[in-house]
Amino acid sequence: MCCGVTIGDMATNRRPGSQGALRAANQARVVQALRAAPATQSEIAERTGLAHATVSNIVRDLRERGAVSTQPTVHQGRRASLVTLERAEGPTVVGIDFGRQHVRIAVAADDPVVLVEDEVVLPVGHRADDSLAIAAERLDELLEEAGLQRGSVAAICVGVPCPIDLRTGAILGHSILPEWDGVTQDRISEAFGMPVELANDSDLGAIAERAFGSYGEVDDLIFVKLGTGIGSGLVIGGRLHRGSFGIAGELGHVQVDPAGTLCVCGSRGCLETLASVRVMAQSLSAVFGRPISSADIVRQALAGDPATRRVVADAGAAIGRAIANAANLLAPAVVVVGGPLAELGDLLLEPVRDGFERFALHALTTSTRIVGTSLGSRAEVLGAVTLARQSAKAAAFI
Amino acid sequence: MCCGVTIGDMATNRRPGSQGALRAANQARVVQALRAAPATQSEIAERTGLAHATVSNIVRDLRERGAVSTQPTVHQGRRASLVTLERAEGPTVVGIDFGRQHVRIAVAADDPVVLVEDEVVLPVGHRADDSLAIAAERLDELLEEAGLQRGSVAAICVGVPCPIDLRTGAILGHSILPEWDGVTQDRISEAFGMPVELANDSDLGAIAERAFGSYGEVDDLIFVKLGTGIGSGLVIGGRLHRGSFGIAGELGHVQVDPAGTLCVCGSRGCLETLASVRVMAQSLSAVFGRPISSADIVRQALAGDPATRRVVADAGAAIGRAIANAANLLAPAVVVVGGPLAELGDLLLEPVRDGFERFALHALTTSTRIVGTSLGSRAEVLGAVTLARQSAKAAAFI
Repeated sequence: MCCGVTIGDMATNRRPGSQGALRAANQARVVQALRAAPATQSEIAERTGLAHATVSNIVRDLRERGAVSTQPTVHQGRRASLVTLERAEGPTVVGIDFGRQHVRIAVAADDPVVLVEDEVVLPVGHRADDSLAIAAERLDELLEEAGLQRGSVAAICVGVPCPIDLRTGAILGHSILPEWDGVTQDRISEAFGMPVELANDSDLGAIAERAFGSYGEVDDLIFVKLGTGIGSGLVIGGRLHRGSFGIAGELGHVQVDPAGTLCVCGSRGCLETLASVRVMAQSLSAVFGRPISSADIVRQALAGDPATRRVVADAGAAIGRAIANAANLLAPAVVVVGGPLAELGDLLLEPVRDGFERFALHALTTSTRIVGTSLGSRAEVLGAVTLARQSAKAAAFI
Repeated sequence: MCCGVTIGDMATNRRPGSQGALRAANQARVVQALRAAPATQSEIAERTGLAHATVSNIVRDLRERGAVSTQPTVHQGRRASLVTLERAEGPTVVGIDFGRQHVRIAVAADDPVVLVEDEVVLPVGHRADDSLAIAAERLDELLEEAGLQRGSVAAICVGVPCPIDLRTGAILGHSILPEWDGVTQDRISEAFGMPVELANDSDLGAIAERAFGSYGEVDDLIFVKLGTGIGSGLVIGGRLHRGSFGIAGELGHVQVDPAGTLCVCGSRGCLETLASVRVMAQSLSAVFGRPISSADIVRQALAGDPATRRVVADAGAAIGRAIANAANLLAPAVVVVGGPLAELGDLLLEPVRDGFERFALHALTTSTRIVGTSLGSRAEVLGAVTLARQSAKAAAFI
C-alpha cells in the first residue's frame, strides 16, 4: 500500500503509435535489458539499440519511481552509472479497464513496476466479442513489447462500467454499456485464454486510491466515478464492499428528485438523470448545436465558458447532495471523485462540496474530505492490477 | 450467533410490580436455585418457596429456551423430573437501552440466559443525570433479585438514541434526546461505578438481529429503527459499520424531498421530517384534537382508522424510498424494520416495500428482503447484552 510515488504517471493517455506508446515500449525494453544483470547506461543503449539520451531519460524516470537504483562505477575507463532493477519482479499480472469508448491495458510485474500500459479507443456501442478480441490482441502485443510470454501471466482482472451479479458472474443490464448485458466472466475468460476476475470499474477506482493513491491508511472511502454514468466504489472498514451479490455502490441511482426524469434503471430522478456526463453533454449540445464530449466539457469549462460552467456547477451540486446522503449513512473519511471530469478540479469539486455541506450531517462537514483523484484516467486499470496481484499472491499459496 | 430461539420472549414489556416483573423475579429465583445443583421441581419449590404450578410453568419456559434440560428421576419414591441448568453460566453482563421515554435493563449470564429484565418509564425530556441514577438503582435491584452482586458484573453496554462521536466518547447533538447532548461515556461510566461501553441504539438493533434474531448468517443487514426519530444500524460484511468516527447509519437524515421541511439537523427534507413517529403524531393530533402516541398509532391503525392508516402508508412509502437509496448503495440481503411501529406488521411493511420497489434497482427488488423485527422492543437491549458479552469475553483474554 505504498507504491503511489513509485508508479507515478508512467505512460498515461497513450494511444497506439503515439509518443506515449513509443516511450512505454522503450521503457519496457530498458526494464527487459536490466532483467539479466545490472548495466551501465551505455550497455543498456547497446543492448536495446536506443539512443543514449533516451536511455538516460528512461533511467531517470525509473529511478524517481523507485524501480531502479543507480550507483557510480567505471565503464571502459570512464566514470559511469550502474543501473540495477530495484527488486526482483514477481509474477506478471494484467489489469484491463473497459469503458464506453476505450479499453486500457496494463501489464505489471511485482510492486512497483507497471511495465507497459496502453489505451485503445473503441467505438461507442462497441460489442463485447469485438472489444474482447481487440483487447486480447493488444495484450499480446504489449506482452511481446515487454519481452514476456502469455504463459507467464499469473492473473488478469477485467473492469467494466457495469454492475456484476456475483451469483452468476454475469454483467447486469441497464448499464451504460448495454451491448455487454449478460456477458459472463466465463466468456471473458475464454477471450483471454485463461480465467479472469471480473470487477466493477468504480470498485477498482476505490481499490486503486488505497493501493496507489494517498489513502492507504483510510478505512472508509468512497470513490465516485463521474462519467457517462455515475458509479461508486465503497471501501468500508478497510475492505471493498460489493453487497450481498455484487452490485453495491450504485450512487448514480440514488434518488435526488422524487418527481424527476425517468432513468434507464426504471426509477425516477436518479442522480444519473441530473448529473452524468451524458446529461451534461445533452444540455450543452442543445446550446452549442453540436455534439459535446467529456473532453469538450473539460476544455470549455476551463476556458471559462459560462454555459459549461453552469452545467458543471449544477451537476456538482446534485452529486454533492447524493454524496451527502451516502455519507449520512456511511460516514466515510474521504470521498474521491474520479472519471474524466475530475480534470476540472475545483470547478467541479467546489459545487460538489457545497451540495455536500448543505445536506450532510453537521459533524460530517468537518470530518469527511471530498477530493479529486490523483490517478487521473488510470485509477480503474491500476485497481485491476491491484486485484490481479492479490489473485496471483493468493494462488501462490494454494 | 445461535441463541434466538433460546432467549425467546423472556420477560418483555414488564413494568415494576407488573405480572411480567413478578414472573421475571420468580424465574431468576429458579435459575438461582439450580445454580448449586440440579433439582426436581419439588425441590425447586422448596428452595424458592414458589408454588409447584409456578415452578412447573417456569421450568417449561426455560426448557423451551434451552436454558435447562430435564430428565426422568425418582424423588421420595415418586417419578419426578430432574432439572439441570443447561450450561455453566459465564460472567454476568448488563445491557441497558435508553429511549426517549424509557430505560430497559437486562442482566444476563453467558448464552443463552437473560436472568432478569425490566423497563422503567421515563418522562419526555428526561435529563441524563436523573435517568442514569434511576437506571443504576434499578440495576442494583435487578441484580439483587437475581442473587448477584454488583461486583460480579463483567461488562455493561449502554445504548442511546443518539449519534456518538467515537473520537471524544460524547453524545452528539441534534438527536431526539437533546437533553443528553454532550454527555460522555465517562459520565455514564461514573453513574454505574464501572467502565461502560456506549453505543447507538440502532446499531444495537442490528447486532441483536444477528445474535438473537433470524439473521445470524446474513453478512449485509440494515436495521431500521422507526421511532420518534429514524436511525439505522449497518452490518456490512458481517461487521457493524460505525463510520470513520461513529455516526454512520443516519437514515433519518437521508434526504427524500429537496424542498422539504427544515430538519433539526439543519438540512431540509430529511426522512425524519416526513416519516418519524413525531411527524405522524403531529399530523394525527391535528385531526383528532388530542395528543397521539406511538401506541395510539398502532392501536388506531390496527383498528382500521383511515386517517391513521393513511399516515402510516405515507410514512411507509417515504421510508421505503430511503431504504431503496441505502440499498442502491449497500445491496443488503435483509432490511429489518424495528421500533414501536413494527407492531403494525404488514400495515407498515407493505407501503415500505412498495416505496422500496419503486426506487430500488431492479436486481435488488428480488434479492433484498424487507421484514419486521422478531425481537419487538427488546432488540436494542439484546444488542447491548451482546456487545457487553463480547467485551467481557475480550477482557477475559487480556
